[in-house]
Amino acid sequence: MDNIVFDFDYAKACVTSNEIKKIGSQLIPEIENIKKSLPSGYETDYASVHVLSDDHMLESVTYLVNKKKKLHISTLVVIGIGGSNLGTIAIHKALHGDFHNKKNPDVKIYFADTVDADYLSDVMYLVEKELCSGENVLINVVTKSGTTTETIANFEIFLNLLKKYKTEKYNDYIVATTDKDSPLWDYAKKHAIDCLEIPKKVGGRYSVFSPVGLFPLGFLGVDIKNLLAGARSILQDCLDEHIKKNPAMVSAAINYIHYKQGANVHDIFVFSKYLRSFGQWCRQLVGESVGKKFDREGKEVAVGVTPTVSVGTVDLHSVAQLYLGGPQDKFTTFVSVTPKAEIFLPKIDAFEKFVENIQGKSVSFIMDSIIGGVKAAYASDKRPFVSVHIPGVEEIYLGQLMQWKMLEIMYLGYLLHVNPFDQPQVELYKKETRKLLEK
Amino acid sequence: MDNIVFDFDYAKACVTSNEIKKIGSQLIPEIENIKKSLPSGYETDYASVHVLSDDHMLESVTYLVNKKKKLHISTLVVIGIGGSNLGTIAIHKALHGDFHNKKNPDVKIYFADTVDADYLSDVMYLVEKELCSGENVLINVVTKSGTTTETIANFEIFLNLLKKYKTEKYNDYIVATTDKDSPLWDYAKKHAIDCLEIPKKVGGRYSVFSPVGLFPLGFLGVDIKNLLAGARSILQDCLDEHIKKNPAMVSAAINYIHYKQGANVHDIFVFSKYLRSFGQWCRQLVGESVGKKFDREGKEVAVGVTPTVSVGTVDLHSVAQLYLGGPQDKFTTFVSVTPKAEIFLPKIDAFEKFVENIQGKSVSFIMDSIIGGVKAAYASDKRPFVSVHIPGVEEIYLGQLMQWKMLEIMYLGYLLHVNPFDQPQVELYKKETRKLLEK
Repeated sequence: MDNIVFDFDYAKACVTSNEIKKIGSQLIPEIENIKKSLPSGYETDYASVHVLSDDHMLESVTYLVNKKKKLHISTLVVIGIGGSNLGTIAIHKALHGDFHNKKNPDVKIYFADTVDADYLSDVMYLVEKELCSGENVLINVVTKSGTTTETIANFEIFLNLLKKYKTEKYNDYIVATTDKDSPLWDYAKKHAIDCLEIPKKVGGRYSVFSPVGLFPLGFLGVDIKNLLAGARSILQDCLDEHIKKNPAMVSAAINYIHYKQGANVHDIFVFSKYLRSFGQWCRQLVGESVGKKFDREGKEVAVGVTPTVSVGTVDLHSVAQLYLGGPQDKFTTFVSVTPKAEIFLPKIDAFEKFVENIQGKSVSFIMDSIIGGVKAAYASDKRPFVSVHIPGVEEIYLGQLMQWKMLEIMYLGYLLHVNPFDQPQVELYKKETRKLLEK
Repeated sequence: MDNIVFDFDYAKACVTSNEIKKIGSQLIPEIENIKKSLPSGYETDYASVHVLSDDHMLESVTYLVNKKKKLHISTLVVIGIGGSNLGTIAIHKALHGDFHNKKNPDVKIYFADTVDADYLSDVMYLVEKELCSGENVLINVVTKSGTTTETIANFEIFLNLLKKYKTEKYNDYIVATTDKDSPLWDYAKKHAIDCLEIPKKVGGRYSVFSPVGLFPLGFLGVDIKNLLAGARSILQDCLDEHIKKNPAMVSAAINYIHYKQGANVHDIFVFSKYLRSFGQWCRQLVGESVGKKFDREGKEVAVGVTPTVSVGTVDLHSVAQLYLGGPQDKFTTFVSVTPKAEIFLPKIDAFEKFVENIQGKSVSFIMDSIIGGVKAAYASDKRPFVSVHIPGVEEIYLGQLMQWKMLEIMYLGYLLHVNPFDQPQVELYKKETRKLLEK
C-alpha cells in the first residue's frame, strides 16, 4: 500500500536531529501507554485508537447504511456541531468537493450545525423542496452527550419538518448517533429510531472513525473500510518507538520545540480548496486538545498553540506578506495533494508576455511551481515548516492523514503536560448562556 | 439612516480611556493627511477613499451592468484572486448566502481563483453545462496588474471554453477589470472586450468599492449605490478628529495597545455563517497591510498581527477551549447580525430535559443567548474584545462595516509606523516560483 509522504526536513523545520531525538525520547512512555491500552478496548482515554479495529462497530454502521439505503433517500441531513460533523465534512469535501449536490449525486447532503436563522432557513427550504416533491430525506442527528444546545434545537426543527411529510413512519427516516444512555439514546429507543453508539471514551474531536463519521460518509458512498485501513496502517508507524519510523513523534516534537521557542501560531497551509475543511478539523483538534488553562497536576499554565488554516494559492494573496515579513511567531505544516483532474492551459501566444512559461502547461504544474516557490521562500527566510503530500484523493490516504494528526496531537499534549482529551473551559460560556436562556 | 452599532466598552476591551485618548491623538496627523488628500482624487495612497464619491466610475459600472444584462446571462464567472475577489465574495455571501446558485436566481455565480485542478474541473463542468444547454455565460476577469499568474491561467482556460460555444461574438461575453494600460487592458482593447478601470493607486485589498467589486455585485442585483452610500456615511465618522465620534480611531487604538502588549493574534469572531467570507476579506486586509518586515524608514522591524477568523457558534465547539483557557495572546472583534429569517422551535415537552429553556423559542434568541454567554465568559476571564452589530443584512450596513475596517487598518498601519498600502514580501515566493516555471 502506498503512503502519504512526510517531508520532515530538519533544516527547513529549523530543528536539529539532536533536539528531535531528545524530545522524541520523552514520548516513549506515552507510546507505551497507548500500546498497553490497546487490549482494554474502549476503557481508556485512547479509546479512539481502538475504534479502528472494532469490527462490530463497522458492522453496525454498514448494516444501518444498507437498511436506510433501501428507503431511496435523495438527501441526507447531518445535524451535529464541532466534533460531531467536522471530520465528516473534512472527508466529504476532500473526496467530493464543494459542488457535490450540484453534480446529480445519488445522495445530496446538508449540514445543520449552528443556530443561524438565515443559514437554517436556506437548508430548510432546500430540504422541504425535496420532501415536497416526494423525495425521501434521512436525518442523522449526532451528539455525544445528547444535550448539545444547537443540535437539539436543529433536530427539533427538522423532526417537525419531517413529521409534516412522513406522518406515520417518520422514525424510519432518522438515525441517532450518540452515547449509550444519553437522553437522545433513550428518546430514540422509545420512538423506535435507529441508534449508533459513540463509545463513551471516544471524544468528539477524535471520533471521525467512529459511527460519527462513518455512518454519513458510508451513506454517501465513501469507502469507509479503506478509510479505516488507512488509519490502521499509519497507526502502526505512529506507535513505533524508533523516531525515524514514527511521523507523529517527529512532527509532535517539531511542534513542541517551536511552541517552546515562542511560535504560538501553527498554520495548516493546504494547497487544495477541498482540503480547507480538513484544516478546520485540525483546528478543533489542536485548539481543544492543547489549549489548556491547567496542566495535568492542576497547575495554572495557560498554554496553547493557536491553529490557523490557510488555503493556497488563494491565501498567498492574503497572508503571505505577513507570513514572510512579519514576526517569527509561526510554525507551518504544508499539505499538498495530487489532484484527480488534469487540465492543460491552451497555448495562446498573446498571453506569453502576461506570465512567462505557463502556455500549454498543466494547471498542476503551475500549482506545484507555486508550492515550490513558497517553500523556497520560507526556507530562505528561516520560516520553519514541514510538508505532507497526499498522492491521491482517496480514502486510504485521508485515513492516514487524519490518524497521523490525531496521534501527533496526543503526543503534543503529552509533551506540554496537559490532558489532550478534555475541554473544561468551554463550560465557562455555557454556564453564562444558560443564565441568559432562562430570561 | 441607521448605523451599524459599535460597542467599544473599554473595560471589556481591557484598555483605559486615557490610553485611548493618548494613542488616538497620535492619529490626528493621519486623519489630516487623508482629509487633505480628498481633493486630489486618485493621486495619493488614500485613493480608495476617493472611489466612494466617483460618480463617473459608478456610471461606467452601471452602464456595463445594463449592457451585459441585455445578453440574458445565466451565469457569471468571476476570475480573480485575493484583492480581486475577496471583497466581492464577502458581500455576495453576506447578502445571498451559501446556496445562491441553488435557489433559482436570475444569475448564478462561480469564482475561479486558484490553480486547483479538481476545483477548476468542477467549475468548468458546471459552466460548460450552461453553455451546452444554450445559456449565456459572462466572464469578468479581474486583475490589477493584468499579470497575476493564477488569473491569467484561469482566464485562458475559460476564454477557450467560451470560444468553443460563442465562436464569433465571444468578446461580448467578457468584461476585463484592470489597470489602464496593463497587458490585459491592451489585449482587451485590441479584441473589443469591454474594460473597467481600476485606478492605479487603489490597491487590491482596498478595491471592493471600485469596479472590482461593484461590477460583479451590481450584475448580481446588489444595490451598489447603497453600498457606496453606507461606506460614505461611515467615512465621515471615521475622519472625525473627536475620538468619541470616530469608531476607526478607537478600534485601531485598541488593536494597537493589545499588539504592543503581546497579543499577536486578532480574531474576527463572526456569529453568522454568511459572514465567514467577510472575515476572510478582513484577514487579507490585516495580514497584508500591517504584516511588514520593514517600517516606513526601511528599518527591519518584522511586525504584524496574525488575523484569524472564527465563526460562531460552530467554532465555540472548536477553539473556545483554547481562546478561554490558553495564553493571553489574542484580541477579539465580535461581529453579530440581525438575520433576515425568523424561525421558532416547536414546543416538544420531551425535549425540555435535553436542553432547558429553549422550547418554542426563536433560533435567534438562542443565538443571542450564546453570544451573550461568550462575551460574559470573555469578560470574566479578562479576554479583551470589542463588538460590532449589524442591524440587518443590507447593503448600507455592509458598506459601513467594510469601510470602517479599511480605515481602522490604515490607522493601525500608521500607529505601527508601516506602510499599509504595499506588500513587498510576496515578491519572495513569486521570484522562486518563476524559476520553477522555467523548468
